[in-house]
Order: sequence, then structure tokens, then C-alpha cells
Amino acid sequence: MTARKILLIGIGAGDPGHLTIQAVEALRRTDVFFVLDKGEVKQELVDLRQHILDTYVPECRVVTGRDPERDRGAEAYVEAVDDWRRRRADVCEGMIRAELADGGTGAFLVWGDPTLYDSTLAIVEDLRLRDGLDLEIEVIPGISSVSALVARHQVSLTQVSKPVQVTTGRRLAKAWPDDVDDLVVMLDGQTAFTEHLGTGATIYWGAYLGTPDELLISGPLDEVADEIVKVRAEARERKGWIMDTYLLRR
Amino acid sequence: MTARKILLIGIGAGDPGHLTIQAVEALRRTDVFFVLDKGEVKQELVDLRQHILDTYVPECRVVTGRDPERDRGAEAYVEAVDDWRRRRADVCEGMIRAELADGGTGAFLVWGDPTLYDSTLAIVEDLRLRDGLDLEIEVIPGISSVSALVARHQVSLTQVSKPVQVTTGRRLAKAWPDDVDDLVVMLDGQTAFTEHLGTGATIYWGAYLGTPDELLISGPLDEVADEIVKVRAEARERKGWIMDTYLLRR
Repeated sequence: MTARKILLIGIGAGDPGHLTIQAVEALRRTDVFFVLDKGEVKQELVDLRQHILDTYVPECRVVTGRDPERDRGAEAYVEAVDDWRRRRADVCEGMIRAELADGGTGAFLVWGDPTLYDSTLAIVEDLRLRDGLDLEIEVIPGISSVSALVARHQVSLTQVSKPVQVTTGRRLAKAWPDDVDDLVVMLDGQTAFTEHLGTGATIYWGAYLGTPDELLISGPLDEVADEIVKVRAEARERKGWIMDTYLLRR
Repeated sequence: MTARKILLIGIGAGDPGHLTIQAVEALRRTDVFFVLDKGEVKQELVDLRQHILDTYVPECRVVTGRDPERDRGAEAYVEAVDDWRRRRADVCEGMIRAELADGGTGAFLVWGDPTLYDSTLAIVEDLRLRDGLDLEIEVIPGISSVSALVARHQVSLTQVSKPVQVTTGRRLAKAWPDDVDDLVVMLDGQTAFTEHLGTGATIYWGAYLGTPDELLISGPLDEVADEIVKVRAEARERKGWIMDTYLLRR
């Protein structure tokens, strides 16, 4: 049995120009693209992914599986995510066994960078342990929304000889972490920055980065927090979804 | 007077395949490339940069300035870096005034991502404040050595709902920061990971990432620390320079 090759291709934060030469080459050596269909409202992202395929591999084969539901009401967040990953891995296993020949190359396209708060790598690592699935994995790095954010704001992620921490809204809502003045916040559905007014922080916020709908707001947190909350809510209402991230600098 | 445009183009961590479509387009609309010549031993990096230009813009114009010396013995690290930046900005100002016409487009090529521990953005921000220099800036994000590192190790930078901190060797040598189990360490000339044996951490180390000389070592820190120290010293001796980074996961 020859191993199947699985590529995890980072396709950038939303601008087709974020694609790397390496990613384009990876698209071109892929036999089958696997997609987990979230049945989602983010039609622009589906269209953008299709645009990338149409541009570089117009004749490609795409196999779609149904993404299982995640229990978002669960108390135990990490366990709920683990369980969801396992069920997603089951779906992926079925697709790979049925649609990818031994020795063939399959690929998953991942928004941003496949190593930053994305579960595809964990899913593929899980699959690797399953009986009779001999997988060879390759990860193609991509431009993350973090890189896109600070590039658009023309601000450095790091200050001279100082650290920067990437964290989640859930954590920031509890406390500003010790010993670090620069925070990048992701997965924040609750505008946790509003918990840190009066700290003298500056915020660099962005949504739909790299896309025609991109929104950017920056300034002293105390002055622009209300505006961000308002703009964010309006955009979410208008489009039905939002993906945003921000740098807080104290 | 029409503004001069200055592009900061992230060219990736060392693999020409890291270049993005957006970066290639930026190379092609550049009139003059500005280079600060460090008179350096990193000939492979100079060659690689030239290879990128030869591939995408073979007819391009390159203007080189002499990079001023940095006072590496200075006690006050941040002040020494600030002073160095100011002197580098002086050199860049001279090049831009002499070689870039009003309305023209100049560019600096930056290894990795221009927003991660790189001084070019700070230099250009400084220039913006100088009399009679009307500059319009654009930052093109690139694949950082951090993204390249974890992609090559096929390991996620983040664990589910947990933070990751990017920090320096200088800081790690003092202490493991509070409240964070995942650390990316950059600019570590002193193998600061050896200060954290016995903590049960795992290390994912890489040097010359993306290049033909790439070195990768991973495993329990206690088991592989000696090997990394040895391989690192040998490589540095052999090539005359080293650029490395690592993820520590506790």
C-alpha cells in the first residue's frame, strides 16, 4: 500500500493575493479537494474559495462532506471541541477512504494559516492513528488574519524586545494576562475589549480582512470602543456573520 | 508635490515559494528597490533575495546604502536599538530623496513578515515625520519564520482555546512568563531553552527555515536540548551565521 498524501493549504485571510507560490503549486498537485460543508451563511467565503480554485485549478475535483454540528451550549468547552473534532475526523475518514486512491494527493484548504486556531491539523493527526490509513501530511503556511490585520494598520505586531500574546476573547474577558502589553485577540464573539476601558490601551481592529468588505478602526480604546461595538453589530446584522480580530497595545 | 509610495514587502522565511501573489504584484510595480547593505556574511540570504528579483523583476533597479553599525555592547538595549534605527532612517532618507522621484514607488524587501521583530516599518514611520518627505506606505504581509517553523513540524501554534506568546531569548532566559504554556522564542542567541529543563516542556526547533540548509529537531526538551545546542553550534560555525526559532510547549 502506498501512502495517501494529505496537504493542508493555507489560503490566506481573505484576499486571493495572499496565496503563496507554494500554495499555488500545492493546489496544482492535488487530485481531490475535501470540503466540510458547514451549510453556512458565509457565502462570500465559499465563493472566494471557489474563485481561488477556478483561477488556479479550474478542472479540479471537489468532494464535500457534511460538517457535524458542534454543541455550542456545552459547559465543558475543550471536551465539546474534542468531540466535535472526532466527529469531523469520522466524516473526513469516510471521504478519504472512498474518494482518494492509495498514492493519491488530497487537500484541505484552510483560511489564514493552518496552525493558528484551526482544527484541520488536529483532525488529520487523529486520522493518522486510524487503522489502515497510511497518511503523509504536508502543511503549507498561509498569511494569517493576524498578519493581515497589522499590515493593513501599518503597525508592528511587536515592540522592540517585547513579547506579544495571541489569545482568545473568552480569556481576555476574564483578565489582561500578566507581563505582556501587546495582545492579539481572536475568536472574540463578545467584544471582550470593552472590559479593559480605562487601561490606556490602543486598539487596532479589523473585520473581513483582505476582502472588499474589510473594516478597519484604530485609536485609543476609550475613544473608539463604542464605535467598534456599533460598527461590528451593524456589519454582523447586514452580512449575517462576522470574522474579526484586533491588537490591543497597552 | 505628489507623494512617493513606499512598499514594505514581506518575502517569506527563506523559501522563494513563500512569496505571495500580492508580493509578486508589488515587486512588479516597484520603480526602485532600496537595500541596506550589512556587509554581511549571510551570503545565502543576499543570493536568495537576488534570486527572487531575477525571477520576477529581472530588469529592476536596486539602490544600496551602507547599514550603520549597531552598538551591541550598549547597556541600554532599547535606546541602542532606537539610536540605530534613527541612523538607518538617515541613510534611507538620503537614498529616497536622491533616487526616488515624486510619485514614484520604492520598496524594501523584508524577510519573514514586516510586522514581526523587524525595524523597517519603524524606520519608514520615522521618515514620514521628516520635512518635505511625503510618503504613502503599504505593507505586504509575508510568511513569518514562526509560521514556517510550525508548518514544517506539522504542529499547531495554538492549543484549543489557549494563548500563545511570541517572545525573545533574552526574556525567556529570565523566566517562563506566567499564565501561558506555549511560547515561540525568537532572537535567541543564547539558547535560553536550556534554562527550562525539568519543566516537562516539548520543543520544536528549526533553523534556516525554508532553505536547503533547513534544520529541524523536536522532542521532549530534556531529551533533545543537548542535541539542539550541539547542532546549532556546529551549523553556526560551518556557515558563519544562524537564524533559528522554536516553539516551547509546556
